[in-house]
Amino acid sequence: METLNIIKISGNIIDDESRLLDFLKRFALIEGKKILIHGGGKLAGNLAEKLGIKQQMVEGRRITDAATLEIITMVYAGLINKNITASLQARGCNALGLTGADADLIPAVKRPVSKDIDYGFVGDVQQEAIPVATWNFFLDQGFIPVVAPVTHDRKGQLLNTNADTIAREIAVALSQEYEVTLTYLFEKSGVLTQTDDDSSIIPHLNFQHFEALKAGKIIYEGMIPKLDNAFSAIKKGVHKVKIGKAEDVVFLINGIAGTSITYE
Amino acid sequence: METLNIIKISGNIIDDESRLLDFLKRFALIEGKKILIHGGGKLAGNLAEKLGIKQQMVEGRRITDAATLEIITMVYAGLINKNITASLQARGCNALGLTGADADLIPAVKRPVSKDIDYGFVGDVQQEAIPVATWNFFLDQGFIPVVAPVTHDRKGQLLNTNADTIAREIAVALSQEYEVTLTYLFEKSGVLTQTDDDSSIIPHLNFQHFEALKAGKIIYEGMIPKLDNAFSAIKKGVHKVKIGKAEDVVFLINGIAGTSITYE
Repeated sequence: METLNIIKISGNIIDDESRLLDFLKRFALIEGKKILIHGGGKLAGNLAEKLGIKQQMVEGRRITDAATLEIITMVYAGLINKNITASLQARGCNALGLTGADADLIPAVKRPVSKDIDYGFVGDVQQEAIPVATWNFFLDQGFIPVVAPVTHDRKGQLLNTNADTIAREIAVALSQEYEVTLTYLFEKSGVLTQTDDDSSIIPHLNFQHFEALKAGKIIYEGMIPKLDNAFSAIKKGVHKVKIGKAEDVVFLINGIAGTSITYE
Repeated sequence: METLNIIKISGNIIDDESRLLDFLKRFALIEGKKILIHGGGKLAGNLAEKLGIKQQMVEGRRITDAATLEIITMVYAGLINKNITASLQARGCNALGLTGADADLIPAVKRPVSKDIDYGFVGDVQQEAIPVATWNFFLDQGFIPVVAPVTHDRKGQLLNTNADTIAREIAVALSQEYEVTLTYLFEKSGVLTQTDDDSSIIPHLNFQHFEALKAGKIIYEGMIPKLDNAFSAIKKGVHKVKIGKAEDVVFLINGIAGTSITYE
């Protein structure tokens, strides 16, 4: 099977223009087929604040109301997505900026009201409906999809969707056709046993090992959802999940940095 | 040669949500290959005002400074483009929202400083560099490109670009491969001899006729640049240019409404 790298960058890289450009330079060096998925960083929140749009919270959960969805669509699908695309084009990557509405690439359903919480315009990806042939078609033509975390419900409604989840769902869907490595880039060098010590990195982590570390409370609690997400991807056919620093992306892909997560 | 419809909608349709949805319903009915190009309407100006960003003018010309470019990228390439795309998807059109940076579809150069006026981040399309094969490739796959008026300079810089011009340049470039009809939709039923009388429409206009009407000052002055633009497209190989109302788009395409412009 041909390999495919799906790489998700998080907000803190996007918030720092020079770090973002440095990352994109490195990303451009990665060989073969690849997809970049980006989150939003602080830009959307800053714009909302300037416009006096208050973030709606219900029982500690963020709600995406209509005004917030507009901001997300402007900032994620417009400003961030198109600037990343133009930067990659300048580096010889034939980037193609996309949302889930474009070519129906990521169908979703508006999250149902649960326990009386209406999350508003939030989308849950319909993984089985992801059009693998369309993704393939773009990848086969040498395009590098750059994906903003906005999906649609096929009825004309855009939906705000978690970028980590989008990365996982696309990775699972495309595992039918490719040997997919899904890489999550964040602030730390990988999964650490000591949160503040980058040298305490676990280079390889399998499910059994993860369960033991979790039971022993050795892994930082904030990492657990990320790792649950990673193992959920692997159980559904993703070849490998990697976690590490954006600056190390090339080393991560080549297996000489970060944490590499496999089932066995 | 296969036919291709390139249709440009202007700001006043975009500003009115129910008119826009009505137009998209009609656009979805047009058979064969088609491209939709949209301008921006008042949304960008409204957002700039809310954010306290003043429009820069030099000798009566609008200047696109960095803050204005950000707004244009957010509103045109994000909010408007993705909402149109999602709406068309809901109507069975496999829409693909794009800017000129995506897949390098519209290369441009930053407009040179002329007569001491620096227009800022404004792009002049490099028509000969438009990648016809890439456009073809999207059209052959049944995608319906929805194009926001944002281009790039291939060096990482996004550029604000007039949507009428983008429509013309794409039409000229794709005339190598298609019999292109370029349709400009605006407020009036077509080219009129009496500005306020929709029944004074000129159904067919050729170059000789246009020159005579222009010399006789029979055509409203505001129409002259639009018609110069239309004849410039036709001289460069575009099969036909049509001008008329958005509500009439299907009739326009079928030749039973609007003004049809040809060279002879």
